Amino acid sequence: MKAFRFLLVALLFALPAAAQDTTKPSTTAPTKQHQSAASADEGSIRQLYESWAKAFRAKDVTAIMSFYASGDAVIAYDVIPPLQYKGFDTYKKDYTDFLAPFKGPVGIEFRDMHIYAGGDVGLVHCLERISGTMQNGQKVDFWLRATSGLRKINGKWLIVHDHISVPADFNTGKAAMDLKP
Amino acid sequence: MKAFRFLLVALLFALPAAAQDTTKPSTTAPTKQHQSAASADEGSIRQLYESWAKAFRAKDVTAIMSFYASGDAVIAYDVIPPLQYKGFDTYKKDYTDFLAPFKGPVGIEFRDMHIYAGGDVGLVHCLERISGTMQNGQKVDFWLRATSGLRKINGKWLIVHDHISVPADFNTGKAAMDLKP
Repeated sequence: MKAFRFLLVALLFALPAAAQDTTKPSTTAPTKQHQSAASADEGSIRQLYESWAKAFRAKDVTAIMSFYASGDAVIAYDVIPPLQYKGFDTYKKDYTDFLAPFKGPVGIEFRDMHIYAGGDVGLVHCLERISGTMQNGQKVDFWLRATSGLRKINGKWLIVHDHISVPADFNTGKAAMDLKP
Repeated sequence: MKAFRFLLVALLFALPAAAQDTTKPSTTAPTKQHQSAASADEGSIRQLYESWAKAFRAKDVTAIMSFYASGDAVIAYDVIPPLQYKGFDTYKKDYTDFLAPFKGPVGIEFRDMHIYAGGDVGLVHCLERISGTMQNGQKVDFWLRATSGLRKINGKWLIVHDHISVPADFNTGKAAMDLKP
């Protein structure tokens, strides 16, 4: 049961991260100038997630939180209750609690990442594979779905919303933590 | 067990919908022109969700799908497996399958809705309450989390991404379907 709880805790903070996959091309027909700006912003957001992933692997909570907006600007729908987490400090505590049980670095892999950027609003979604070894020696390895919203605030892209989940298995009523893309 | 499955099926397609709550104010410092454009776009997106909600309540799948981008532009992370649903047709079938077991209209209520729009990219997230009576007489009433991404395609806002979920209860390993905001 303790091992199971470690697995569940490990699901808590699996957040959107570095781009290692395809980015959906725009289906709009913007001007070349708009295309260029959107492409540059998508690149900036991709870089943000690459940097986030490095911080996540290193379990550096301060570095991780540097990619989030401050105060109550952050609202997250996490994989565990309650329905929503409000505010930077609440979310930072969650990261801290999540990373503590890991022994050594945390693995993260991305699949089917899509990045959209327009003006000062960005959107990212992807599948994420989290892996690692817990302090008790248990190995964890699972996939989840991650969607994030970003704002360009004073010229810097910051995450304002995360939605992290695993599907619910309706035959068993349980969280489906063994799915693979 | 059949009643339970109805409840679970009812979770399947609870999607983002009409704005009846607060919209997060921008924390950027754009020009007045940008503010005006963003405000107009946020209003358009709010109207889209109000129209979506009407179609959802009326169980009009054709009208519902008119708010989505065509072809493979839509990728959804639904509350049930698999990890992702790819494409308009797959998602339309899900809506159809979901609405069929309801007797009469489906209730939908929104809480803590936030809308962001910049350029041709939009983001919406909120908590949603779904209620109704199934064909077998069972009443359902539950809350979930919904995040959507939108693109302005040829001047029209369309949904390209949905992420719908309930949290996982780590004490029981089950989907937490009885939470309230």
